Amino acid sequence: MDKATLLYEGKTKNVYVLENGHYLLKFKDDVTGEKGVFDPGANNIGLSIEGVGRKNLRMSVFFFEKLEAAGIKTHFVRSDLDEATMEVLPAKVFGRGLEVICRRRAVGSFFRRYGDYIEEGASLPLYVEMTFKDDDRDDPLVTRDGLVVLGILSGREYDVIKEETRKITGIIAGDLLEKGMELYDIKLEFGYHRDELLLIDEISSGNMRVYKEGKYIEPLNLSALLFA
Amino acid sequence: MDKATLLYEGKTKNVYVLENGHYLLKFKDDVTGEKGVFDPGANNIGLSIEGVGRKNLRMSVFFFEKLEAAGIKTHFVRSDLDEATMEVLPAKVFGRGLEVICRRRAVGSFFRRYGDYIEEGASLPLYVEMTFKDDDRDDPLVTRDGLVVLGILSGREYDVIKEETRKITGIIAGDLLEKGMELYDIKLEFGYHRDELLLIDEISSGNMRVYKEGKYIEPLNLSALLFA
Repeated sequence: MDKATLLYEGKTKNVYVLENGHYLLKFKDDVTGEKGVFDPGANNIGLSIEGVGRKNLRMSVFFFEKLEAAGIKTHFVRSDLDEATMEVLPAKVFGRGLEVICRRRAVGSFFRRYGDYIEEGASLPLYVEMTFKDDDRDDPLVTRDGLVVLGILSGREYDVIKEETRKITGIIAGDLLEKGMELYDIKLEFGYHRDELLLIDEISSGNMRVYKEGKYIEPLNLSALLFA
Repeated sequence: MDKATLLYEGKTKNVYVLENGHYLLKFKDDVTGEKGVFDPGANNIGLSIEGVGRKNLRMSVFFFEKLEAAGIKTHFVRSDLDEATMEVLPAKVFGRGLEVICRRRAVGSFFRRYGDYIEEGASLPLYVEMTFKDDDRDDPLVTRDGLVVLGILSGREYDVIKEETRKITGIIAGDLLEKGMELYDIKLEFGYHRDELLLIDEISSGNMRVYKEGKYIEPLNLSALLFA
């Protein structure tokens, strides 16, 4: 690869700056979880599994290319599977990182929060919510009005990101459905490259919950089913 | 008082049904807090203080009458200070109780959630948010879209309650300001009486944070300053 400078060491990826100004994401074999069990919703590194980085890269590239083909703007430039790297456009994130979650069914933290009002697994009509990346505060939920008063997003930006998220989720859910799987929820991230809003980060087993015939697909098994 | 049937035993009030169909709120001398210290944001009963019930009733009546005079619809009918009771219109709450919070400054749980993005005590432009009354889940925040997908409020109802909350908060903040005090935040509750949206519950020291010359006014001292 080009001469690259380490910019940020993440839990599952390192980020480098390339000489052309692009970023290089190096996918690691570390996955989040608790006590050795993979849990995409967890905030800690739970274990390391040989080959996971490449699998997540391959899945990300697959979805980024599919989304680009559908007219969605993403940060994806090119990938190198052998090196487990993805070259992307540099982007400015919102605050210290804003996660945009689209839920098609009530599981995970949504069900933990609102279990008084909904059955686990009940359908949600592409419900979108945003949380701050903040491990110390357990990724707090933030409303549209909250993002506005905190100066993170304008109301208009919130609405655009919400609609884009629903479009993206629809495309990914549609692809999984063709392969006999159902997307329950997905976590996306957006940023600005110059004045353009882009889908950034990765799109892989660690960012989504997928079920098949009502049974949860362990993230480590998703890749095999997707590329069967 | 009329023949009354106990409907609900609350932390700081008991609710009875009267023969005329109205509810009777009996204010108790118990206040929420932790380890013997009064904290309006706490979910547990911390201590019992002689006369607190009557003081909170008097303050509630004062604000309900002021709000009614300004055209706000409330559940208030009449009060009996000696008995520490308030007669109100019966109202159907949202879900198992929805708290509507209006914040003029970033303190309390808002600052705890978003401390990465705002200074403690910074001004907020009448920011409104809603949380479910759910002690076990620590009163979870819920967005406009969340309330819609859970079937608790329509988007239109959310917008009406938000605007009504800002109006009410403005009136209460204005009254406190005339008396040299500043309202930082307030927690309201709404319900339907037949088809009419009403401000319900109480409006007292336990529902708001008030400061004077930058110093927090202990809830137990608010009444004396308000009626000085």
